[in-house]
Amino acid sequence: MSSQALTSPSVDFSEWYNEIVYRADLADQSPVRGCIIVKPYGYELWEGLQHALDKRFKATGHQNAYFPLFIPESYLRREAEHVEGFSPELAVVTIGGGKVLEEPLVVRPTSETIIGEAFSKWIQSYRDLPLLINQWANVVRWEMRTRPFLRTTEFLWQEGHTAHATEAEAEAETLQMLDVYADVAINEAAIPVIKGQKSDYERFAGALRTYTIEGMMGDKRALQSGTSHNLGQNFARAFNIQYLDRNNQLQTCWTTSWGLSWRMIGGIIMTHGDEKGLRLPPRLAPIQVVIVPIGRTEEERGVVMESVERLKRELIAADVRVRVDTRDFQPGYKFNDWEMRGVPVRLEIGPRDVQAGTVVAARRDIPGKEGKRALSQEGIAASVTALLNEVQANMLKQATDFRDANTHDVKTYDDLRGVIEQGGFARGWWAGSTEDELEVKAQTGATHRCYPLDQPADGGTCFYTGKPAQRLAIFAKAY
Amino acid sequence: MSSQALTSPSVDFSEWYNEIVYRADLADQSPVRGCIIVKPYGYELWEGLQHALDKRFKATGHQNAYFPLFIPESYLRREAEHVEGFSPELAVVTIGGGKVLEEPLVVRPTSETIIGEAFSKWIQSYRDLPLLINQWANVVRWEMRTRPFLRTTEFLWQEGHTAHATEAEAEAETLQMLDVYADVAINEAAIPVIKGQKSDYERFAGALRTYTIEGMMGDKRALQSGTSHNLGQNFARAFNIQYLDRNNQLQTCWTTSWGLSWRMIGGIIMTHGDEKGLRLPPRLAPIQVVIVPIGRTEEERGVVMESVERLKRELIAADVRVRVDTRDFQPGYKFNDWEMRGVPVRLEIGPRDVQAGTVVAARRDIPGKEGKRALSQEGIAASVTALLNEVQANMLKQATDFRDANTHDVKTYDDLRGVIEQGGFARGWWAGSTEDELEVKAQTGATHRCYPLDQPADGGTCFYTGKPAQRLAIFAKAY
Repeated sequence: MSSQALTSPSVDFSEWYNEIVYRADLADQSPVRGCIIVKPYGYELWEGLQHALDKRFKATGHQNAYFPLFIPESYLRREAEHVEGFSPELAVVTIGGGKVLEEPLVVRPTSETIIGEAFSKWIQSYRDLPLLINQWANVVRWEMRTRPFLRTTEFLWQEGHTAHATEAEAEAETLQMLDVYADVAINEAAIPVIKGQKSDYERFAGALRTYTIEGMMGDKRALQSGTSHNLGQNFARAFNIQYLDRNNQLQTCWTTSWGLSWRMIGGIIMTHGDEKGLRLPPRLAPIQVVIVPIGRTEEERGVVMESVERLKRELIAADVRVRVDTRDFQPGYKFNDWEMRGVPVRLEIGPRDVQAGTVVAARRDIPGKEGKRALSQEGIAASVTALLNEVQANMLKQATDFRDANTHDVKTYDDLRGVIEQGGFARGWWAGSTEDELEVKAQTGATHRCYPLDQPADGGTCFYTGKPAQRLAIFAKAY
Repeated sequence: MSSQALTSPSVDFSEWYNEIVYRADLADQSPVRGCIIVKPYGYELWEGLQHALDKRFKATGHQNAYFPLFIPESYLRREAEHVEGFSPELAVVTIGGGKVLEEPLVVRPTSETIIGEAFSKWIQSYRDLPLLINQWANVVRWEMRTRPFLRTTEFLWQEGHTAHATEAEAEAETLQMLDVYADVAINEAAIPVIKGQKSDYERFAGALRTYTIEGMMGDKRALQSGTSHNLGQNFARAFNIQYLDRNNQLQTCWTTSWGLSWRMIGGIIMTHGDEKGLRLPPRLAPIQVVIVPIGRTEEERGVVMESVERLKRELIAADVRVRVDTRDFQPGYKFNDWEMRGVPVRLEIGPRDVQAGTVVAARRDIPGKEGKRALSQEGIAASVTALLNEVQANMLKQATDFRDANTHDVKTYDDLRGVIEQGGFARGWWAGSTEDELEVKAQTGATHRCYPLDQPADGGTCFYTGKPAQRLAIFAKAY
């Protein structure tokens, strides 16, 4: 770790973000344009997210499969909106085995088309429905401006693809997976996301409806952190995904897709990080507890290490992810280092603690003395586990309070300008067109983030057009 | 499942193999040349292998990371043998975001080069060593003749990459990971692989020494199922992977790499499959036990299902992967179907079993009556768990007996011709050159599979050149 001070997020949030990514050892730059190397600490965070998602996918009846990386160019053209949406972002293989290919192969930007083709073969009858598939994969989108985790040319994600007999079932699936995403964001990543529906302009290329989870980052901007699409019959028609119903009539399926990527890691950094570095929610932290032994002499350290080893064993037995830092550095340096890496709880133990049968526990979520307390060595597994749960809950509360304090109701366009200028979410009745939406963006930099699913029963007056509006929308600057 | 009979492996092993892949629902063909779609049942098998490997990698101190899919073309050229070995097999991206790229990007065929570049940045001092990294990834090699799982243009694998201070440490790592592969092959996949060293001709492009695990398939051919390479200082020199030693002297690292792919699924099919279809080792089987309820009337089925549900709950509680088949088919059809899919144990239960408090257990590894026994419903979890362990052990024994019965010592070239003609492994003293090795291949179709690590203390006379030889080699036809 470099000893240079971290840029303050209030001075330059963007620079602060980049510094954390590299200094907390999450990722490294690569020689390939727009691609990052995810280092072990960052990858373990991704494995935690994968595990949290995968078990929920399986619990809701989905199965993993794997489809080819390459997609024939002609496939993308079969859904008109889809090819229009993705064409500018494609990486194309034109040479294979030393020869120019007859038909170029696109490196998948997403897999609706190749999976749609497979579904059309696999689905014959209503008995084959619903078909519930997920894929863990890398995808490539040729982005002009890239940022680690948030927007990279290649990224890792999961993409779910399902087919159903009816529109209602497809809609239920789309919303169920949105709930799964929100559950993981809120209860694992401690990001209090808002579930909502995208505007027509912001919806996925080829979808009927796109749903999103939107989080508020530390700079009060929004981050779209996962999306779930009801594709209607658009892809089913383009790829002939049909089934014979109970009356032996040929019907067209209704399909969905939903994806969440390592962008969520960027969301964790930007939701929770502070001027000391990363802060990780205990449920996802690769290291939940670091033990720092303290002793000035060889003898002191010997005495301390006996207790440390015992505490470590007890914590491991309780499934706590623990690391002991015996490096040849000053304690102060180590404290800073683990704070930079966002470890939720630090245990300090010196000769006096050994004598008293205690350890000092310092929480990453509460700075200074207030976050410190002495714990008895006896029953350490139970007290540390309880402390980790407290930290998890408090991080969610901090992020929720921050979001709520920076979310403002707007009645007029002037209100919205004011909110966007000072930073935050502007929530107001909206009945504008796509042109209106683009005009707001051009003038304020804010985009339509979503219509929250949670809506008041009544309607109101659109803050922009003055027309009657059925739904509240959230506008904000976004990543 | 189609009701057409499966081609017999003794009539056409290759056709039998393809039929199993598709009829056991492991994979499907894709519209992309040489690429397959891995269906949920096949992917679950891969997840089982991933889990078995990943926990062993972590237990030996390795960490997962992720490196870019694309590699600048110039990187591959930095290690001369390496570029020569892989050039004919590359897929090349020449267009990104609608523009022709200045430097084409190769889709990784393996990642020594891009990881070597990262290692040169990450390693400064002896304190950074050893560096032990693994990556789970897709790779692409433009193969001319492809077969599902065995040789596909894109495949999933893991590739380990490590750097060390000394040659001895690199060699120890290379052999340790070979042991991990052998452990997984033998104790999880029930494939009695032979650990050995590759000949100079067969070693990895750029390696000092390549080690392999070789299994014998049901047609007596060999399958290379995992390789571990001591790369010496070849890549370290090409990518400047250097460190300051304890005396502050700049030293060049020693690196290793090792990979195992979904080819292992092909090995499982070909080692264990029979004329009824797939046979899966219980430790990796996605479904370990299938329960088939039997009843002619609604009432009978109602009575039976009560017991079935209780048995299922008890098995799930004991971590047995169990499926109940309540489909509207005849029991005989279901038996064939699950035999095709290789489920290790089938439990049949009808009204008379309910009355007697028993179930009939049929083992997939022993055909006919001999493989059937009645089990008491009481204590079913313990007896089924024991039975699964028996099946696992017996499958390994069957494969070991088959391999041993088809491995023959050869003293002369004529001996070898005879063995290769009848099929099997020919084991003999070898002191031939690469030219000799290629001549044997041209004349007999057999390749030098490996020098087994397990060697007699003395030497002997080369069966081909008549020269004194230090090591026994195994020759066989191979995949």
